[in-house]
Amino acid sequence: MELSSGSRDARPAVTLVAAVLPAGGSGERLGGATPKQFCALQGRPLVSYTVRAMERISWISNIIVVVSPENIETMKSIVEKYGHKRVTVVKGGKTRHRSIFNGLKVFAENEISNHLLWKPEVVIIHDAVRPFVEEDILSKVVMAAKEHGAAGAICPLVSTVIASAADGCLDHSLERARYRASEMPQAFLFDIIYEAYQLCTEYDLDYGTECLHLALKYCKTNARLVEGTADLWKVTYKRDLYAAESIIKDKLSQQVYVITGVEEAAAQIGVLLHESLKSQLKDKKYAIQETQQLVDMLEKSNVTLLYPLVLILVHLDISENISFSIGMELLTRIKKLAREVKKKNILVYGLLIQHKDHLELQETVNSAAALIMALIKDRNPELIGQMLVA
Amino acid sequence: MELSSGSRDARPAVTLVAAVLPAGGSGERLGGATPKQFCALQGRPLVSYTVRAMERISWISNIIVVVSPENIETMKSIVEKYGHKRVTVVKGGKTRHRSIFNGLKVFAENEISNHLLWKPEVVIIHDAVRPFVEEDILSKVVMAAKEHGAAGAICPLVSTVIASAADGCLDHSLERARYRASEMPQAFLFDIIYEAYQLCTEYDLDYGTECLHLALKYCKTNARLVEGTADLWKVTYKRDLYAAESIIKDKLSQQVYVITGVEEAAAQIGVLLHESLKSQLKDKKYAIQETQQLVDMLEKSNVTLLYPLVLILVHLDISENISFSIGMELLTRIKKLAREVKKKNILVYGLLIQHKDHLELQETVNSAAALIMALIKDRNPELIGQMLVA
Repeated sequence: MELSSGSRDARPAVTLVAAVLPAGGSGERLGGATPKQFCALQGRPLVSYTVRAMERISWISNIIVVVSPENIETMKSIVEKYGHKRVTVVKGGKTRHRSIFNGLKVFAENEISNHLLWKPEVVIIHDAVRPFVEEDILSKVVMAAKEHGAAGAICPLVSTVIASAADGCLDHSLERARYRASEMPQAFLFDIIYEAYQLCTEYDLDYGTECLHLALKYCKTNARLVEGTADLWKVTYKRDLYAAESIIKDKLSQQVYVITGVEEAAAQIGVLLHESLKSQLKDKKYAIQETQQLVDMLEKSNVTLLYPLVLILVHLDISENISFSIGMELLTRIKKLAREVKKKNILVYGLLIQHKDHLELQETVNSAAALIMALIKDRNPELIGQMLVA
Repeated sequence: MELSSGSRDARPAVTLVAAVLPAGGSGERLGGATPKQFCALQGRPLVSYTVRAMERISWISNIIVVVSPENIETMKSIVEKYGHKRVTVVKGGKTRHRSIFNGLKVFAENEISNHLLWKPEVVIIHDAVRPFVEEDILSKVVMAAKEHGAAGAICPLVSTVIASAADGCLDHSLERARYRASEMPQAFLFDIIYEAYQLCTEYDLDYGTECLHLALKYCKTNARLVEGTADLWKVTYKRDLYAAESIIKDKLSQQVYVITGVEEAAAQIGVLLHESLKSQLKDKKYAIQETQQLVDMLEKSNVTLLYPLVLILVHLDISENISFSIGMELLTRIKKLAREVKKKNILVYGLLIQHKDHLELQETVNSAAALIMALIKDRNPELIGQMLVA
């Protein structure tokens, strides 16, 4: 169900790469009780999307997720539930820099973890709340870090930046063209960033925010800046959660046609769906049994773990009359099935295609396709078990 | 249908206030052909939401919308279609500053418009792509401008800001606590900002972005900085359109219960709805006629002009059996009605509440309420005319 991460080989020419994801934020700016990295998008915590974005990249050997002490168990259960691999959960410190430092120590000291992980040549640092990071930019910052010692993604400033004076008035405004927003991912030769953290002051650890700054200040390592793309943005406010959910839905609805012919299980599902349609045409039965088989297969294939899967039961009605009791029976059975499989992250909807007049065939088909796309795009859990009519 | 803009009196103690909305951007960062201020959210252009946010504030006497020459007609038709009042559309210049300057000239020179508008004491400058501005912050910047000559909303920086050196490497990073993002709205004593634009250089007009900076540089007017809220953000990228649409849907779905008892027309609608429900209970008819009356009233009241209105026909079924032909007839009529009134920006859905077993009443009611809320929240135009079953 998932596209491979980049068709060309983007593996950087570096021996060992690891990633540290600080995920210790409290989410104050969201105004909610749940820290943003744990907010659910399509039922799944944001941090799980970011972990997945890292995990699908084969050349990242270890992913260290640093969370505040009270969220260790939550994070471990997320790793287990969504089947994440190569992930180590580490206890964070009081500030962002202290958390990242803790994440790095897993490769160098016994203080944090009782078994040391193999020290990487290059370490990526990436926020847990930037879920849409692509292999291309990760590869670029890693290669730049290998050459220059440090590298980070940047984006143009959206707003003008100003300095305020002590009296609450404007001191000066910065010339926008000279400045950039420092985003994530960043990457460092491990020895450089680790040394920078060892040398830096308590003040840096408590009030600093910029890893590139530490590398420059303490190791004289000038960071290479790499132009990033707009999708690197950080989920900060509630509106960002809305945006992230819409982007996820958009991406999912582009994966509709991937279900058949890609791998054995998927192809088999396609055949089943086809057969199920055929059998309904011939026998005017409801294929609830075949649907149950499909659900069982989907469950085994683990595809429903990461995203809610939309399953639309298409019922073709070519008869002149159909007794209402059968219609209601079908509806009742679909509703029951929908409620059951909802727990497995499968959203079931019914679609009745009425085709009585051959002249309107194209119109009916267009209407059915529009309804199917609307159901797939919206993934509305409240509408499961409903029977729409094309 | 709309909440009044703030219950306490937020009118600033200023004689005359006008607003200039630069709306000349090309929307490059969106990656689309349509400039973002003209992108449709729930069928209505973004700029119309921003104009509405200004227009509903009674103490803003004139709203100047500055657009690029090729969009003059588009903007004028938006003003007409959505019934905006107190709006003057003005031709912009090649850059942001030149456009704002053109907007200001409407109050001072005959160059732009052949009838001069009354010169305001204070002028608000606000981006056309920040639709969620509230009266409170507008009032604050206007009062601060009256006192200090200039004022602007600021927000905390989301990312660290860095300066890049000529070789593409990090030069230095700014200490985040000292800096702020300069947002909109801003406000100025008219004479000050107008003089600043008259005195500033061609370079300023071509490359500058910050009005507060001009006031400081050319009129020695130190701007008062006012802490803004997160909803002042600027729609810049595609993800911001997603976020804005979700926020609009959220706000709309909170307006559900406002329909009855607020004003005469709304109360009448409520009574009709109630009667329509009662008549269905008694006579088991479909109330299509009553619905048509409702639609006519809604159309006359102009509430459907600004937002798509959701209308759910609730059909109560308390009989043991209902013949399928009646069910299909009802569905066909609802579909036909839905297609017709869609053009009037009304989204019609059907909801069949089946209530046969008194023990399950609460469950059925909960299910109906969940479906109604889902329909209202989603406002999905593809699902109109469908009959859902609670």
